[in-house]
Amino acid sequence: MLPRRPLAWPAWLLRGAPGAAGSWGRPVGPLPRRGCSSAPGTPEVPLTRERYPVRRLPFSTVSKQDLAAFERIVPGGVVTDPEALQAPNVDWLRTLRGEDGRPPWAWLSRAPVLAQHCCLGGLRQMTLSACPTKWDLEPLPQEHRAGCSKVLLRPRTSEEVSHILRHCHERNLAVNPQGGNTGMVGGSIPVFDEIILSTARMNRVLSFHSVSGILVCQAGCVLEELSRYVEERDFIMPLDLGAKGSCHIGGNVATNAGGLRFLRYGSLHGTVLGLEVVLADGTVLDCLTSLRKDNTGYDLKQLFIGSEGTLGIITAVSILCPPKPRAVNVAFLGCPGFAEVLQTFSTCKGMLGEILSAFEFMDAVCMQLVGRHLHLASPVQESPFYVLIETSGSNAGHDAEKLGRFLEHALGSGLVTDGTMATDQRKVKMLWALRERITEALSRDGYVYKYDLSLPVERLYDIVTDLRARLGPHAKHVVGYGHLGDGNLHLNVTAEAFSPSLLAALEPHVYEWTAGQQGSVSAEHGVGFRKRDVLGYSKPPGALQLMQQLKALLDPKGILNPYKTLPIQA
Amino acid sequence: MLPRRPLAWPAWLLRGAPGAAGSWGRPVGPLPRRGCSSAPGTPEVPLTRERYPVRRLPFSTVSKQDLAAFERIVPGGVVTDPEALQAPNVDWLRTLRGEDGRPPWAWLSRAPVLAQHCCLGGLRQMTLSACPTKWDLEPLPQEHRAGCSKVLLRPRTSEEVSHILRHCHERNLAVNPQGGNTGMVGGSIPVFDEIILSTARMNRVLSFHSVSGILVCQAGCVLEELSRYVEERDFIMPLDLGAKGSCHIGGNVATNAGGLRFLRYGSLHGTVLGLEVVLADGTVLDCLTSLRKDNTGYDLKQLFIGSEGTLGIITAVSILCPPKPRAVNVAFLGCPGFAEVLQTFSTCKGMLGEILSAFEFMDAVCMQLVGRHLHLASPVQESPFYVLIETSGSNAGHDAEKLGRFLEHALGSGLVTDGTMATDQRKVKMLWALRERITEALSRDGYVYKYDLSLPVERLYDIVTDLRARLGPHAKHVVGYGHLGDGNLHLNVTAEAFSPSLLAALEPHVYEWTAGQQGSVSAEHGVGFRKRDVLGYSKPPGALQLMQQLKALLDPKGILNPYKTLPIQA
Repeated sequence: MLPRRPLAWPAWLLRGAPGAAGSWGRPVGPLPRRGCSSAPGTPEVPLTRERYPVRRLPFSTVSKQDLAAFERIVPGGVVTDPEALQAPNVDWLRTLRGEDGRPPWAWLSRAPVLAQHCCLGGLRQMTLSACPTKWDLEPLPQEHRAGCSKVLLRPRTSEEVSHILRHCHERNLAVNPQGGNTGMVGGSIPVFDEIILSTARMNRVLSFHSVSGILVCQAGCVLEELSRYVEERDFIMPLDLGAKGSCHIGGNVATNAGGLRFLRYGSLHGTVLGLEVVLADGTVLDCLTSLRKDNTGYDLKQLFIGSEGTLGIITAVSILCPPKPRAVNVAFLGCPGFAEVLQTFSTCKGMLGEILSAFEFMDAVCMQLVGRHLHLASPVQESPFYVLIETSGSNAGHDAEKLGRFLEHALGSGLVTDGTMATDQRKVKMLWALRERITEALSRDGYVYKYDLSLPVERLYDIVTDLRARLGPHAKHVVGYGHLGDGNLHLNVTAEAFSPSLLAALEPHVYEWTAGQQGSVSAEHGVGFRKRDVLGYSKPPGALQLMQQLKALLDPKGILNPYKTLPIQA
Repeated sequence: MLPRRPLAWPAWLLRGAPGAAGSWGRPVGPLPRRGCSSAPGTPEVPLTRERYPVRRLPFSTVSKQDLAAFERIVPGGVVTDPEALQAPNVDWLRTLRGEDGRPPWAWLSRAPVLAQHCCLGGLRQMTLSACPTKWDLEPLPQEHRAGCSKVLLRPRTSEEVSHILRHCHERNLAVNPQGGNTGMVGGSIPVFDEIILSTARMNRVLSFHSVSGILVCQAGCVLEELSRYVEERDFIMPLDLGAKGSCHIGGNVATNAGGLRFLRYGSLHGTVLGLEVVLADGTVLDCLTSLRKDNTGYDLKQLFIGSEGTLGIITAVSILCPPKPRAVNVAFLGCPGFAEVLQTFSTCKGMLGEILSAFEFMDAVCMQLVGRHLHLASPVQESPFYVLIETSGSNAGHDAEKLGRFLEHALGSGLVTDGTMATDQRKVKMLWALRERITEALSRDGYVYKYDLSLPVERLYDIVTDLRARLGPHAKHVVGYGHLGDGNLHLNVTAEAFSPSLLAALEPHVYEWTAGQQGSVSAEHGVGFRKRDVLGYSKPPGALQLMQQLKALLDPKGILNPYKTLPIQA
């Protein structure tokens, strides 16, 4: 169990952006002589090593000779300027937090320079919109992490990555791969002084087949840019998530990102067709096929999907893109109980079948908080539960008719007590906002204890009821919402302030309860640094042992993203 | 390259069934003292070891003490009767071949006893139908394999499998896992005297969630029975294949079976949610979650999907079932060229989108052979190419309308020169038969050289054109057909008889050509024993090396399905 502490926002967050304009373009500065102190003039950032019981493993430290070697491998791609290293050393949630509990886009609108220059350029779009259509962020974290890396490398090719890793392997230097630095579990930032290997300059589309919809690209391509690229060609990316403006496709694959299209297009284990991966010793593993079917031996690429850069560094991705839907409809419904929510899901799977693209749910308290803190009005009568159903299809008329018939049935049979349906983009966005802005409403309610659980769908809400009884007046609110269609519950508990006794009432109880249901303590956010100690609640010892064996096989020196994904070995 | 020889069908195939009625129920007979000779009274079956340059590895041989130990572990589940061992020692293609080139169902109709008793019970349905709706068989193989195992074990639980493997691991006894024995590449039968571990009695459904559609079952469940089970509950299995009446779900997963629903529901890497696997040393690896999302560590189950029983024995499967479609339509179209076939695919992906469930193609020669040998008439005007498009959806009217509009567009724009559409089941079957009975027609045309290739879709037909020019009059016919929607070409060359010079003109040319396109020399059939020596055409040395390392990690003594999947190490 990880310690949780109340927030203490540093002054620089309030007055400006770290690693400001031109950081990437500056000449490489000298390496600080020793220690992990912040650059002069920058604020004190609490270091991960100071907040968590973690010891630096006996890796080498970067020498002048190493820097010279890196400069030969990636000329102009070696960053040592302490100021430029500030942002990539810090968990992105941290950099995005404003003191007043506002979500990142509110803060970003005051910091366009940061947004443009600190690997977060893709988030610029958020500054243009008061309410983004979709996101899956947790913009108000309860914990923060920061490393103290003194070197960031920016290769352009897999060959350069190969040379870098060969050198690091020989020299026993630890490496922290980093995409858009948008992870939720501290997997993308160094814990100590690991070399940060950024995929930002590996951003070329290598090929796109207009018949098969197969896209092959370098790992550093930003998801949103890929989306735009394939949408111009009448396809869509099989995944979509709130961080799409910043996250890299390589990072998405390395973390097995879920997101908003999961219900319809499934896991990346199914849609990723091939990978190019550089192994710890610099070997380039070419599994970059662009074939839908290939049964020639073990499917090695699967090893790297979701392994968070601990088994190899993904340098290129081949992925299957589905055709672009021509029509999108959204229905927002009130349900009298959770049993009816489940029955509604079951019925709409049958009646909407192939056009169902999202099935989200939220409880009455979520709606109350969204109303109280954000002044969003419910479009339907007050109900114990609400569901949001989205359809995406190739024929607007057919889709509307199917959805209409389903609604008629659901209302007629009492599964649903009230409902509204939207086809125009403005109203669609408005309905989505009710579900998507719950996180923001919760953050305004007080200190938030957050859990991202995967559970058998029929038990999904039981933990919420259980916690309400267990915590009583000690909690301000206990709410449940999330991707019901994927069995993914976002369980949140609010309180006036952080309280160790409330935390003790929650953990390990929530994890144990989840384990009792054979659920997952991390549905979509991964393990990273933050959850490695609770992995055992969802995986048996035999599985953890095999994971350690795979790590030892593929990265015997343990130089790839150390301190992440796997529990500390006894 | 593997040697190919002309057929020589044994007499027993023509006069009756091996391992006839009651074989499973007989008392276990004594173990033959030595050698691999056939049982008295049974015909001579050419042994794999006599046909291929393969040497037995230094495994132990089964002793009386071993048999006694097995009898303690699986009381009544130890089969040593030579007659009962005949069928599971022989490649199923072999047992199904009639002398007159007729497909298996024709032959089976004369052999209901075999069909009922020799692990082939599921094929009984074929005897009831002159023309099965769908299959994906290659009923007329050019090669045969047979092992000489003297022991078959029939555990009921993963614990029994665990005890068996623990014993075999300690004693250095090789084990050949076997499901329905319906594989196409000799992966399911022993090469020498490996112990056959059958999953036939592990056939229980463990759970089914009527909301999420998640099925959990033992590995020995027959696919067709699972289909029936979930269809009664308004779901379908995410895979379907010709051998569904016999094949086991565990075998499907172990071989990463493709099949007829691949285009719509994708790979088993995406639809399988969890596995229980027994490792070589008897450790039970429990990854049998039934969660759609789980990002707690490496996704270990992926290692075993498609590893053909060489890394562990799958004992239970958790799989996501999609809702049952309410309407199925089929269109059969003539196209003026392969470019138009590709354009038709592209257009129909856009216009049919979410309801497209199959896109198959065949060339003019296929249609001529189907007409000549099977007297099936083309429902459309003579064309250089034909495509079969299937839709599956939740609303018959909508689907028919979409398909109608697409056809109108395709005909109007010249992509398609003629076409017909079917909605009633009889005509749907008739149209499918034109595509599905190509294999049968080819077999009546002479000796057939068969290749199952995965290629970038835009180059899919080039190898056919190339071979026609290359082979000239030496080949009788060179044809191409297959699952175009999946980029999967079935390339077939017919000749009056087997000819080493024709073979030399084909191989390694076909494999080299495929490798030149970064294609796969085994799209859906796997590697097994037959293709392990051509694996290098589709996988680079680094990938093969990592596969060997994984094998060494998970099965250090190499007892699991030896001689399969991986190339012989130098």
